[in-house]
Amino acid sequence: MSTASYTVTGMTCQHCVASVTEEISEIAGVIDVAVDLPTGAVTVTSDDEISPDAVRDAVHEAGYQLV
Amino acid sequence: MSTASYTVTGMTCQHCVASVTEEISEIAGVIDVAVDLPTGAVTVTSDDEISPDAVRDAVHEAGYQLV
Repeated sequence: MSTASYTVTGMTCQHCVASVTEEISEIAGVIDVAVDLPTGAVTVTSDDEISPDAVRDAVHEAGYQLV
Repeated sequence: MSTASYTVTGMTCQHCVASVTEEISEIAGVIDVAVDLPTGAVTVTSDDEISPDAVRDAVHEAGYQLV
């Protein structure tokens, strides 16, 4: 089990949170995605370590930026 | 054909715009819904006049407020 934390900018509402959660959840091996809207903190729990590039791509796909 | 304008508060992103557009579009007789995110201006075009209460209910259903 692996947990990694990221900061995402540009999220303004719960729809944004849902989009980011959905895109990151589609990465193979991801078990859980927790997003804190006020801070932009995103915690990704996975079976094995996930490539930060994969997370970055997923965040971009959702329309937001990774710090 | 009838056109009415409203102001909606609380929309922060295009997801919010999509939610408001979708809910108002479900009102019987509505032909077009145009939302301007920066100002919150919502223009509703319909076959006949739509009850402002119906628009208010739709906006509430989407999670926002009508001024």
